[in-house]
Amino acid sequence: MKFPKGKVAFLVTRNINKFNEAKLVLAEFGIATAMLNIEAIEIQNDDLEEIAKTSALDAAKKCNLPIIVEDAGLFIKALNGFPGPYSAYVNKTIGFNGILKLMEGITNREAYFESVIAYYEPGMNTPICFHGRVDGSIALEARGESGFGFDPIFIPSEGDGRTFAEMETEKKNEFSHRAKALRKFAEWYKKHF
Amino acid sequence: MKFPKGKVAFLVTRNINKFNEAKLVLAEFGIATAMLNIEAIEIQNDDLEEIAKTSALDAAKKCNLPIIVEDAGLFIKALNGFPGPYSAYVNKTIGFNGILKLMEGITNREAYFESVIAYYEPGMNTPICFHGRVDGSIALEARGESGFGFDPIFIPSEGDGRTFAEMETEKKNEFSHRAKALRKFAEWYKKHF
Repeated sequence: MKFPKGKVAFLVTRNINKFNEAKLVLAEFGIATAMLNIEAIEIQNDDLEEIAKTSALDAAKKCNLPIIVEDAGLFIKALNGFPGPYSAYVNKTIGFNGILKLMEGITNREAYFESVIAYYEPGMNTPICFHGRVDGSIALEARGESGFGFDPIFIPSEGDGRTFAEMETEKKNEFSHRAKALRKFAEWYKKHF
Repeated sequence: MKFPKGKVAFLVTRNINKFNEAKLVLAEFGIATAMLNIEAIEIQNDDLEEIAKTSALDAAKKCNLPIIVEDAGLFIKALNGFPGPYSAYVNKTIGFNGILKLMEGITNREAYFESVIAYYEPGMNTPICFHGRVDGSIALEARGESGFGFDPIFIPSEGDGRTFAEMETEKKNEFSHRAKALRKFAEWYKKHF
């Protein structure tokens, strides 16, 4: 079974913000996005690709559809990569204010967001992965209300100094790790099928 | 297949400190401990029991032995349970100094360590779990060199004001979450077989 040709991508997620970002990016390629709200196993691993692959295999077992899974993390250089693959849990507990506190007095504010999209369809040996990364820095204070997660404290280097949370989704998608990974997926998908 | 009666427990871990603690506790019950250095899947979940169960099932598939797996975390009240199940990664990245920084200016320093032991033998439906918990507080500064992980910043309530890292393993085992869970397992195991 394959995606109906050029028509729809099933994104396994329970995060409506993630879904909304993906929908806009894939629409650029004429691909509709469906939100598949099922629980997929997520392993503890320092490598986002391993996490995304395992989730994709688990989700595919449960629904027998061709699916994509996205996993992402914020990696802060001065904190040895923290919060990394555990960004969702860290956001839920100490939040971006916790990150700002950890970064107090630290001059090197370099950080990047990374995203991995894993595509799997029943019958494949192993999922195919697509990576996206955006370099930037941790803001001195939180700014903006858009987006989710650590968006209020992340300033992409390629931007104009605004945090992700100060941008509309369309603007964030010009720079974001997730949008970059999704575009790679979409280009491959359109050639492949 | 069962444990050789009252003789040996196979502990799946790559952490030599964890193994050494377990060995001492199980010896109180006449049980020898073997360190089974295999990789077992660890899921992302807020519930330690789910993590331990999944790891035990995965490890048992790989070695076909009756095994125990231990999973533990430090839960800090003022940080909404952070670092919780991700204590190992948090320790590796921001370390206990990161925790002390997050706790700066916070008066409520309540915290607890929790441990879950999952026992599984081939043929069982689901692993059996044993819980241990120790209440205490986060120290104002790190003290002591023993133990591992967050031991230098955790003061058990039942103790004399020393951190876990200021105690010999035998002393830590009087109070610790891990020792409590291991004793419950050992009592059950001696009755059961």
